[in-house]
Amino acid sequence: MHQGKTFIISGPSGVGKSTVLHELFKGRDDLYFSISATTREPREGEEDGVHYHFIDVKHFQELIEADALLEYAEYVGNFYGTPKKYVDKAMNEGKDVILDIEVQGALQVCTKRPETVRIFIAPPSWDELERRLTSRGTDSPDKIQKRLLRAKAELQTADVYDYFVINDSVERAVREINAIMIAEHCKPADRMKILSE
Amino acid sequence: MHQGKTFIISGPSGVGKSTVLHELFKGRDDLYFSISATTREPREGEEDGVHYHFIDVKHFQELIEADALLEYAEYVGNFYGTPKKYVDKAMNEGKDVILDIEVQGALQVCTKRPETVRIFIAPPSWDELERRLTSRGTDSPDKIQKRLLRAKAELQTADVYDYFVINDSVERAVREINAIMIAEHCKPADRMKILSE
Repeated sequence: MHQGKTFIISGPSGVGKSTVLHELFKGRDDLYFSISATTREPREGEEDGVHYHFIDVKHFQELIEADALLEYAEYVGNFYGTPKKYVDKAMNEGKDVILDIEVQGALQVCTKRPETVRIFIAPPSWDELERRLTSRGTDSPDKIQKRLLRAKAELQTADVYDYFVINDSVERAVREINAIMIAEHCKPADRMKILSE
Repeated sequence: MHQGKTFIISGPSGVGKSTVLHELFKGRDDLYFSISATTREPREGEEDGVHYHFIDVKHFQELIEADALLEYAEYVGNFYGTPKKYVDKAMNEGKDVILDIEVQGALQVCTKRPETVRIFIAPPSWDELERRLTSRGTDSPDKIQKRLLRAKAELQTADVYDYFVINDSVERAVREINAIMIAEHCKPADRMKILSE
């Protein structure tokens, strides 16, 4: 049976990753969006198993000890991680899995599962990223400069990534991600299995 | 400026490569189909610079000595080769170049230019390849068995290839080749140039 693959999609704040992912998933029941486990409290309107798997610190600790997480990180006092269980289930059902995680998480997954495909969504230019962050109107100029610095720092570890998708338009970014997913399924490791049958 | 890439497309006799290439090139002026140089005489209806670049043995020898061929081979007493000149011109104009060559040629290009992307078009199964060769009605049963053996031998050197496109339908094969071409342009080497500007 056709086996799914895992694709990491990372990108700096403001690059438009959420919009791209939203478009990517439209009408696609052959794709699975990995839902993180977290120890943070659910916010208004957040559902367990939909937005996050909400678990307590003890449970999270158990998952770490059982090596049941593909990656995890602490962020503002809460833990976030990717349970292997759901990822593997989806792949076994022939679905491709999308992990929306950051560079540090990508590095962890890359160590555990080097076959995971890593895609970085980049802005067309730094000026454009600054413009997008400014036009959101949610951050102070100081915060925006910090986000820009962080984005540039992330790009320094960019050799972790197999592909760079430049989000100059959502349509193009989605087309490129879809192309990458199709191309990766044409790699010898996948196809030689079929041909040796 | 956007730089083109070179893609080798190989495949065993009877796999349907010509049909796939014909579909791939429909309405695409951003693609360049590499025309081989040959020392063989033009056949009825063949035009110089369209079907082949028809040259004499002396000229072919000069091209070899000047390292002006990406690959070459002798076949039934005639020489065939890929002139670098037209490939490079097309790439510099931002066009992707398709080389329709066999495994031996692919190996040569791969040594000279490891960045060349190598795609192998494979049949859905050996039975299906036999069926296609038989239904063409052009070969004797003996010739068909030889072609099948040769195809299986070619697959033994298949680790030369980066991608395997299984031609179970022309539409799917073309979609996969297009996806591979888009994905290859998302590789870091190409994209980091843009992002460092």
